Amino acid sequence: MNIAIVGLGVIGGSFAMGLQAAGYKNIYGIDINESTVRIAVEQGMIQKGFVEAGDILPEMDIIIISLYPNQIAPFVEQYRNVLKDGAILTDVTGVKTAIIEKVSKVLPSTVDFVFAHPMRGSEKKGIIGADHTRFIGANALITTIPTNKEASLKLIEKLYKEVGFDQVTRVSPEKHDEQIAYVSQLIHVLSVAVVNSTQASEETLMFAGNSFQELTRIADINADLWSELFLNNRTALLKSIEHFEIELDALKYTLEENDDKELKTIFSRAANKRREWY
Amino acid sequence: MNIAIVGLGVIGGSFAMGLQAAGYKNIYGIDINESTVRIAVEQGMIQKGFVEAGDILPEMDIIIISLYPNQIAPFVEQYRNVLKDGAILTDVTGVKTAIIEKVSKVLPSTVDFVFAHPMRGSEKKGIIGADHTRFIGANALITTIPTNKEASLKLIEKLYKEVGFDQVTRVSPEKHDEQIAYVSQLIHVLSVAVVNSTQASEETLMFAGNSFQELTRIADINADLWSELFLNNRTALLKSIEHFEIELDALKYTLEENDDKELKTIFSRAANKRREWY
Repeated sequence: MNIAIVGLGVIGGSFAMGLQAAGYKNIYGIDINESTVRIAVEQGMIQKGFVEAGDILPEMDIIIISLYPNQIAPFVEQYRNVLKDGAILTDVTGVKTAIIEKVSKVLPSTVDFVFAHPMRGSEKKGIIGADHTRFIGANALITTIPTNKEASLKLIEKLYKEVGFDQVTRVSPEKHDEQIAYVSQLIHVLSVAVVNSTQASEETLMFAGNSFQELTRIADINADLWSELFLNNRTALLKSIEHFEIELDALKYTLEENDDKELKTIFSRAANKRREWY
Repeated sequence: MNIAIVGLGVIGGSFAMGLQAAGYKNIYGIDINESTVRIAVEQGMIQKGFVEAGDILPEMDIIIISLYPNQIAPFVEQYRNVLKDGAILTDVTGVKTAIIEKVSKVLPSTVDFVFAHPMRGSEKKGIIGADHTRFIGANALITTIPTNKEASLKLIEKLYKEVGFDQVTRVSPEKHDEQIAYVSQLIHVLSVAVVNSTQASEETLMFAGNSFQELTRIADINADLWSELFLNNRTALLKSIEHFEIELDALKYTLEENDDKELKTIFSRAANKRREWY
């Protein structure tokens, strides 16, 4: 079975390493950056590397497209005529509905595309950040579409397990995007807004507790990637922000009104909910 | 030297244990809850315990008032006439300006009050949560007032170091409250509002990453304590929320306008700032 990894960044590079570690021999790497390809070969991450995808794609059974969200559909469109019949394509992006819509328009009916989201990002960038052990114990989501063959879904799920993922769960693209908007993207929004509101002074910042350090950690964000993730999910994310703002306003109003009774009610509701969750 | 701890909760109990561990013998405990006093004595946290503060306060050189913010000034007022000349009082609350203002109105000139903030809270409540090792490596802030004697400040700083605190820094009450509003209270506001906006479904919550779990941890909040902390610092906290909202609106606007250029600028600003900090 020939497997190509398209885009040898943190995630693509980690997949290459993980698949080799799992015993797969025919792992090929594609990256537009020549030195990235050279590093991947030198470090034994891939069997052979290519700068031009057309040179190798026709022979590939599985193609893991580890590109930025907006590059996926153009990539499929460019190479749609050289794909092997029965090939399985898969992506690794953190938003789904918009990507599926774009890809569906250009995907030939002779191949299957299993849209997936490995839930283990990184603040690192590029092949030097690749490390397949990051996947160990992580979870992944597979967002199925009606044309997916059960065999394709099972094969991708198997690959995820083999490189170390713990739970690989199927979920609808809509549900995925709505939930990711809340549990991930909203938290990134808050982190960025907290840091940009920058009321910290050098001397007191050292006294900030865990909660400040933890929340602001994700503000050290990959601007190119996350702007694509946000804008490809902007409807769900805006809805999530608006839900949040209703609660923020309610809390703010208790401060303005000096209303300790209502403030305690708000706190108790949050405390109870949090305890239900974890 | 006789030391009284008033209020044997998580912080008061931890101070009693820490001072004993540091070699102080005459540690007395006061709590309105009889069973709390009994536990403290049985577990050897204090030498002797009292339900009625008036029975012991006249002999105390140092009085660590580990009560809720709104109880401090009433406590001082109630016992102002029995305090030993030259006694040093200190508190442990997380807001300062409002407390100092209230206490200053009732504080006799024969004693000194060193307002302090040990920066190591807990989600636990009561004496069963007491554990002096929590203080090891933590930081504390001393908010000085013009009437403080240097000897009193030095003595309280020494006690903090002896129970395990790392850095004990002096800061003005205004600066303290303004910074705490940002690095601590604002983060609690966001956490509570995120949890209360509750868009999570049971099945997807398990896929929430670290950032969601970390931020929402502090939503499991002690409602009685934090409503006092927020309302005693409401001016600074409201200002902090408003600064945050300006940045949230700016980010939201880029989503509404699908403006990837401005969104990237916002991300880069946050990433650069965060990297400066940590």
